[in-house]
Amino acid sequence: MGYSEYDMWLQGGEGLPPEPCFAAGPSLPPEGFRLTQDAEGFRIESADEAGRMYGSYALQACLKLGKQPDGSVSAPAVPERILNHWDNLTGEVERGYSGKSLFFKDGELYYDPGRIKDYARLLSSAGINRVCLNNVNVTPLSARLITDKLPDLAELAAIFRPFHIKLIIAVDFGSPVLLGGLPTADPLDDRVIGWWAQAADRVYEAIPDLAGFLVKADSEFRDGPAAMGRTQADGANVLARAVKPHGGKIWWRCFVYNCEQDWRDTKTDRPKAAYDHFFPLDGSFDANVTLQIKHGPSDFQVREPNSPLLGAMKHTAQAMELQITQEYTGQQIDLYALAVQWEEILSAAVSGTRTMRSLIGEEIGAMAAVANTGNDANWTGHTLAQANLYAFGRLAWDPSLTAKEILSDWIGLTFGTEPALREPLLGMMLSSRGTYEKYTTPLGLCWMVNVHHHYGPSPEGYEFSKWGTYHRADHKAVGVDRTANGTGYIQQYHPFLQALYEDADRCPEELLLYFHRLSYDFKLKSGKTLLQHIYDTHFEGVEDVTDFMKTWESLKPLLPESAYAPVAVRLARQLENAKEWRDVINTYFFRKTGIPDSKGRHIYR
Amino acid sequence: MGYSEYDMWLQGGEGLPPEPCFAAGPSLPPEGFRLTQDAEGFRIESADEAGRMYGSYALQACLKLGKQPDGSVSAPAVPERILNHWDNLTGEVERGYSGKSLFFKDGELYYDPGRIKDYARLLSSAGINRVCLNNVNVTPLSARLITDKLPDLAELAAIFRPFHIKLIIAVDFGSPVLLGGLPTADPLDDRVIGWWAQAADRVYEAIPDLAGFLVKADSEFRDGPAAMGRTQADGANVLARAVKPHGGKIWWRCFVYNCEQDWRDTKTDRPKAAYDHFFPLDGSFDANVTLQIKHGPSDFQVREPNSPLLGAMKHTAQAMELQITQEYTGQQIDLYALAVQWEEILSAAVSGTRTMRSLIGEEIGAMAAVANTGNDANWTGHTLAQANLYAFGRLAWDPSLTAKEILSDWIGLTFGTEPALREPLLGMMLSSRGTYEKYTTPLGLCWMVNVHHHYGPSPEGYEFSKWGTYHRADHKAVGVDRTANGTGYIQQYHPFLQALYEDADRCPEELLLYFHRLSYDFKLKSGKTLLQHIYDTHFEGVEDVTDFMKTWESLKPLLPESAYAPVAVRLARQLENAKEWRDVINTYFFRKTGIPDSKGRHIYR
Repeated sequence: MGYSEYDMWLQGGEGLPPEPCFAAGPSLPPEGFRLTQDAEGFRIESADEAGRMYGSYALQACLKLGKQPDGSVSAPAVPERILNHWDNLTGEVERGYSGKSLFFKDGELYYDPGRIKDYARLLSSAGINRVCLNNVNVTPLSARLITDKLPDLAELAAIFRPFHIKLIIAVDFGSPVLLGGLPTADPLDDRVIGWWAQAADRVYEAIPDLAGFLVKADSEFRDGPAAMGRTQADGANVLARAVKPHGGKIWWRCFVYNCEQDWRDTKTDRPKAAYDHFFPLDGSFDANVTLQIKHGPSDFQVREPNSPLLGAMKHTAQAMELQITQEYTGQQIDLYALAVQWEEILSAAVSGTRTMRSLIGEEIGAMAAVANTGNDANWTGHTLAQANLYAFGRLAWDPSLTAKEILSDWIGLTFGTEPALREPLLGMMLSSRGTYEKYTTPLGLCWMVNVHHHYGPSPEGYEFSKWGTYHRADHKAVGVDRTANGTGYIQQYHPFLQALYEDADRCPEELLLYFHRLSYDFKLKSGKTLLQHIYDTHFEGVEDVTDFMKTWESLKPLLPESAYAPVAVRLARQLENAKEWRDVINTYFFRKTGIPDSKGRHIYR
Repeated sequence: MGYSEYDMWLQGGEGLPPEPCFAAGPSLPPEGFRLTQDAEGFRIESADEAGRMYGSYALQACLKLGKQPDGSVSAPAVPERILNHWDNLTGEVERGYSGKSLFFKDGELYYDPGRIKDYARLLSSAGINRVCLNNVNVTPLSARLITDKLPDLAELAAIFRPFHIKLIIAVDFGSPVLLGGLPTADPLDDRVIGWWAQAADRVYEAIPDLAGFLVKADSEFRDGPAAMGRTQADGANVLARAVKPHGGKIWWRCFVYNCEQDWRDTKTDRPKAAYDHFFPLDGSFDANVTLQIKHGPSDFQVREPNSPLLGAMKHTAQAMELQITQEYTGQQIDLYALAVQWEEILSAAVSGTRTMRSLIGEEIGAMAAVANTGNDANWTGHTLAQANLYAFGRLAWDPSLTAKEILSDWIGLTFGTEPALREPLLGMMLSSRGTYEKYTTPLGLCWMVNVHHHYGPSPEGYEFSKWGTYHRADHKAVGVDRTANGTGYIQQYHPFLQALYEDADRCPEELLLYFHRLSYDFKLKSGKTLLQHIYDTHFEGVEDVTDFMKTWESLKPLLPESAYAPVAVRLARQLENAKEWRDVINTYFFRKTGIPDSKGRHIYR
């Protein structure tokens, strides 16, 4: 297969270079490659066909970005770089902001094979090599992907296969009952064990290279082993043993918590749930089970600490789960370059000597993320949100990359390397995460979003709900005390982090209100009170968006109209959203406290 | 037709008396009757067949309740006593808490003719004589009740007809575009005028006694004349002229307000909307247009003042709209005898000399209410909620009845007249409205409900939304100032009421926070502060529900098990709901103010 089969990021690739020389590199790691240039031209060495493909993409990227091959070996940090679609067979995409499903419609598999091929190329060019097409919230309809809809899925798998992408199927833990007609889905029941084994045999006959199954169990009203008095390991292992003969794996999500909490119960603390449920089970999962752990203990909020479960288990395979779709981060209306947040996540300490980044490829053997793509013409709704999909793939391959490097590459590949365009756009994207945080919920405050849809502010929308999502703001203080004197959540961390987080004066300020309950007059390092900081950031956030609009407008002559206009429309919507957030949050705290802005700016009464 | 055709309320009627004598009473009013008893037996005089039917029901009720016919003439206060179903053709019932639709399923008319006959008898026995089967939020599917689904609807109409119930169809104002393929629904466009005329001809050919059309226009994203630069009168009149040749009428809802308000806009005040939109148009509606006006200016809240629009127009036909389905009043989980609230509504002054009751049959020529029925075996989910359906029919016939009279009759007809059962149950039902108000939102505070579904508390769930639903509570005060110094809403009332409402010291206390913004230390007539009153009522409300449970349990030996057990289950759920409301509202205000309960009861932090 020549490299022309491997199209460059975003259908680019005009001015293709001369055909490179492909060479065997048996000592190179799987999927890895070495790209060199000598007098005869370009050379791509690899040990396998996948490496040849990734090398080809890399060469094209080099050429388009005007870089020289540096001769070093490039190989992925983890063997599994996974995209999770939350697509329902109805065609709706849960938390999707880019149109409808690329794969499903009205209960059937329904797609444009040409577009799926483009999509597979797009994903593989970013380094993604595993894709789950159906939602982890498996409906009775999509449960049937392992029964009568299997032949259709096998056809889709065949489109992804040339791009070295293996499919994963999200399955319903209750399938033995739902599909098999058994009276129970108890994982220790022989009939259930047999049913899963047969199901796996059938699935692997149709899709022999299927990567495995993804499961959301005992989570938000989904079936799971706990309901049957079994452990999470019992549940995962029955599936693992079914797929093992076929080389398959199980991805078992750790998003298990009490979603029917009583707000009056101040002992239960949702962030503690994943660790409490899974850490004691370390070592009891089969080798082909990977626990898929969200990066933070809440749910893809704008600012959370890293999950203490990540890396804590030494005898259990783990995947970090990120969210590319912008459920809580602007829903592809607001600009939000997730690479910046992910770099922060990876750079954060997990102990006195290690960062989260150092766990990738070690304790954390796989990277997964929820897709932000749909059937919109530009894949991601907001054109600049393509950078988030790209960034996930790049980081999963090489977690040492900075957001600046990744976004700079993405802009270069997408819009060209002209500095007059690239530098301002890069600046805007790099600051976008901080800007969104400013005008929404700074200092680690979570859940001040509108219920259900999660766009826009509702400071107490989740305050008395059953979801375990409380900030308990009163007229004097705000936040949940998660120290040893409070819920004790901090004690789940490495002692190094415990010491850091327990002390409000040492705690990273951006996480202050995640860990502490503080009065509004708490003094930050800037000398400002906590309340004044809230006011200031909200005013600043709106100013930032105004600046984004000006920057974007200034770039108009350098941008294709097809990119310029839709983004300009979204920036205008973002400005309205930022103003709404500014005013609601400032008014909310002003009403609570009666303390005016020290700079006399307008806060609604 | 003998009276045995007219079954008694709730399928009762064992021990039927000897066949009465029916006599012509040409001087009696339409639908009216006179019931007498002499040596030969019972006599029912009436001027028409409907009167004969209503008289038969009355006789059965008399006998079952152990009353003597008093020989007086009974005739309805208004000729149209209307039930509005909010049933969608999918089978879902908007704000329905009693199962699915009795009439529709999966996009089609789908019903049990026997059950519909029972239902028609049930309604007519309460005095209801007009029924709209489909939701005022007309979907594209239900819009087709006036096109291809018309023959099916005509069959349903035939089941209601013997019970002197005429159907109404809710139509989409955009039908000329949606169904007719016209480029506009502009009511002054000749093609639109022609389209509606033809539609009416077609509909009346199929259902010659159709009462008319019901329309929700320019309301909550529905099509309407305003979008085309036309008045509400223009919109209503085009329909009125189409049905006029057939003797039809139009019911035009006045629920028109800005549902995309910005909470920062303190000038716009949703309660003012109906009056502002419709009062200036008084006299410009055709004679066969009835404006259907919700009893209060908000939306069927637990406590609202009466709408100032009701009775204000002297040259426009008006209907009062009530809501039997308990959207904001407990959703047929919590016990809530609406008759009590309706008696209050009717007893309230509209001027220095008249009550709302005196308008019924005068300015207000029709009574309408949103149905609480569905395909649950007991019709209304909560068995005791049957009393609300019954009460609406009774009050529409005779607004001078008290809640006590109506509920006493309902209990007698349903469970028998044994005082040991009747008195305690009557007491419980009579106090249920006050109890619900206590544990939810006293003093006229509205909208502290969970968004979308409207069950349970969310004190700020609607505080920053676009629905015009704000209480603007801060750490010192709560409520919207609707006096002349505020939004001026009170100025829409008769001067007598203006004077009453403007002055917080004279304003009926139960409406204080509907009209005034008051500080938490405002002194009520009881000597308590406003805040302490809030705390007290919330604690009392829960105690009341506990008492209801005790009362109900004490009645167990006197009740059929089929009635006892399901109500007991609902009372237990009500208790949980009451506790949730108590704790959320008390905590909400405690957090805002830091002021503890003077009696030291537990308020969560």
